[in-house]
Amino acid sequence: MNTNTTRMRLLDRLQLTKPIVQAPMAGVTTPALAAAVSNEGGLGSLGIGAMNVETARKTLRETKALTGKPFNVNVFCHQPAQPDADVDRHWTDWLAPRFAQFGAKPPQTLKEIYVSFLDDPAMLAMLIEEHPAVVSFHFGLPPRAAIDALHAAGIVLFASATNLDEAAQAVAAGADVLVAQGIEAGGHRGVFDPDGRDPLLGTFALTRLLASGFDVPVVAAGGIMDGAGIAAALALGAQAAQLGTAFVACPETSIDEGYRRTLLSESARQTTFTTAISGRLARSIVNRFTTLGEAPDKPEVPAYPMAYDAGKALNAAAKAHGEPGYGAQWAGQAAPLARAMPAAELTRTLQRETEAAVAALRARLAQ
Amino acid sequence: MNTNTTRMRLLDRLQLTKPIVQAPMAGVTTPALAAAVSNEGGLGSLGIGAMNVETARKTLRETKALTGKPFNVNVFCHQPAQPDADVDRHWTDWLAPRFAQFGAKPPQTLKEIYVSFLDDPAMLAMLIEEHPAVVSFHFGLPPRAAIDALHAAGIVLFASATNLDEAAQAVAAGADVLVAQGIEAGGHRGVFDPDGRDPLLGTFALTRLLASGFDVPVVAAGGIMDGAGIAAALALGAQAAQLGTAFVACPETSIDEGYRRTLLSESARQTTFTTAISGRLARSIVNRFTTLGEAPDKPEVPAYPMAYDAGKALNAAAKAHGEPGYGAQWAGQAAPLARAMPAAELTRTLQRETEAAVAALRARLAQ
Repeated sequence: MNTNTTRMRLLDRLQLTKPIVQAPMAGVTTPALAAAVSNEGGLGSLGIGAMNVETARKTLRETKALTGKPFNVNVFCHQPAQPDADVDRHWTDWLAPRFAQFGAKPPQTLKEIYVSFLDDPAMLAMLIEEHPAVVSFHFGLPPRAAIDALHAAGIVLFASATNLDEAAQAVAAGADVLVAQGIEAGGHRGVFDPDGRDPLLGTFALTRLLASGFDVPVVAAGGIMDGAGIAAALALGAQAAQLGTAFVACPETSIDEGYRRTLLSESARQTTFTTAISGRLARSIVNRFTTLGEAPDKPEVPAYPMAYDAGKALNAAAKAHGEPGYGAQWAGQAAPLARAMPAAELTRTLQRETEAAVAALRARLAQ
Repeated sequence: MNTNTTRMRLLDRLQLTKPIVQAPMAGVTTPALAAAVSNEGGLGSLGIGAMNVETARKTLRETKALTGKPFNVNVFCHQPAQPDADVDRHWTDWLAPRFAQFGAKPPQTLKEIYVSFLDDPAMLAMLIEEHPAVVSFHFGLPPRAAIDALHAAGIVLFASATNLDEAAQAVAAGADVLVAQGIEAGGHRGVFDPDGRDPLLGTFALTRLLASGFDVPVVAAGGIMDGAGIAAALALGAQAAQLGTAFVACPETSIDEGYRRTLLSESARQTTFTTAISGRLARSIVNRFTTLGEAPDKPEVPAYPMAYDAGKALNAAAKAHGEPGYGAQWAGQAAPLARAMPAAELTRTLQRETEAAVAALRARLAQ
């Protein structure tokens, strides 16, 4: 087991006063959200995987204007989609009746709506110029040259890992911190190879395996919603806990009202993995889109992010007719514990709860 | 959140000095194992779901001869199998070539090798006569009359729950304690309805949801292998942690050498859910049987425990030819952390580690 000193290294290195990372949720995070968490001594994060370079740069600068503290910028490192017009057409043909319900038609061709960071030198250059304290990788790892360049700019690198093999790859590639993403986590599962065997490790097992097996700091992610969860993550050997769904209902996020209402309703009791929305496995609240994705006649889903082009169009058409059930309503398995609270207040509350949980634990064992 | 006092209730009620439950693994547990854990102040357990009444009674009496402390006896509350000779025959026909590899033939007809506790008045009468401190239910809940009779005998009742709905059913039926079984757990998943929608909750999310949502004590299960895990379970609001795989390699268990060697090898890094071995979803180390269960031409698997009759026969034939890969090598997702250690020593080690984890946690937060 690492010593306390080793385990504290991450918070010291980033000058955090709270072991709390607000997850970098693309389409959800905003400068106001990230800055609020960072200003409270946690690590705020921006998901820029769905942005072009100029929007991303603007978002980083807005965040810097709101906080002088470290924050984290997350990029998507998926293998770029191999175009397959037949698969795309079968998919949009199959979706056409759903579009028709809302007086719309599917896109004629599906576009690769997000450029992978694996092949985005302009985004790399922007990150080096803006040098946020942390850059994090999802869906894989960039080439060594990119990692070296980011390191040379003084940036600390986080890499998502869903199993022991991915963690070993990340450490070998030079990642400074492992984000242990368990199956509880909402949103896109960070598996490197979507066609590989996924052992679907829970947060509990994965966090303990990574904290026991690697010397680099581990951040636990998936199903963590409150201070009891943060205390548990730390007990498992993580140096911090990353919370996504816990922050989704904060007023600072950019989500729409349908998602917000669904997350705070009884519907949040049922989440499921689906590939139908984006083309990659992601955990959403069970809704019309996830149910559609379970239809027995569903054809092959186009690769990420091609399917997402159709998914976003279907959601836009449905929303225009007052139907929120085709949204990417990402949420983790402990979503029923979500709270709608300003991010700064939530961060302070989480820290108070963590301290109370640890004190209670100590009192209990002493009895 | 419950108060400390409420949370301590389970340990006080059972006069346990350690928040450790050794999981009741049918086919693995022995009187020596359960007694060793109970004598150390944890809760030892016997899985009697695969025993007839006389063997079960003898096992309970042997355990009582080894410990005067409370222990737990687990029964299977599955809906009895609906016989379907066609399904059975297709299954055994499909398995025949695998049997042939080992010079054997599948059973001509599949038998319901385990009587469900839902329909076993003799087992109920035995339990009331022998009145162990705890009886626990897996796969569901017995009728109210059985619960009342066990309660009248002074027995504390644990019920496995894998989601919020099962937990609510268990509490409504009179269960005193919820065993939150996350997807990390090895062996049979305790879902009540194997044909229902299983949200596949991880231990982290499930434990927190049940501890937050119900007033009865919660025992966390799945992926817990050491004191760091026990501390994390307690932080999540559980009153105790149930460890199965952690105890499998103890010399007191009744497993065969193939299982023991596999668990302590690199193979333990890969576990998977399969229905092919027994007819119900269970987590095993990836082996020849789980791989067979993924064959694309696999016919419908007979209901539990009919399939298990064939599964056990195939394993016996394979073992007779020196092939251990068809065994029910149940293990949880954190199996790489398993240790081969006498049960009493392991129980003491787990408690020391738990105390160290809590002390380290407190020191870290105080910095």
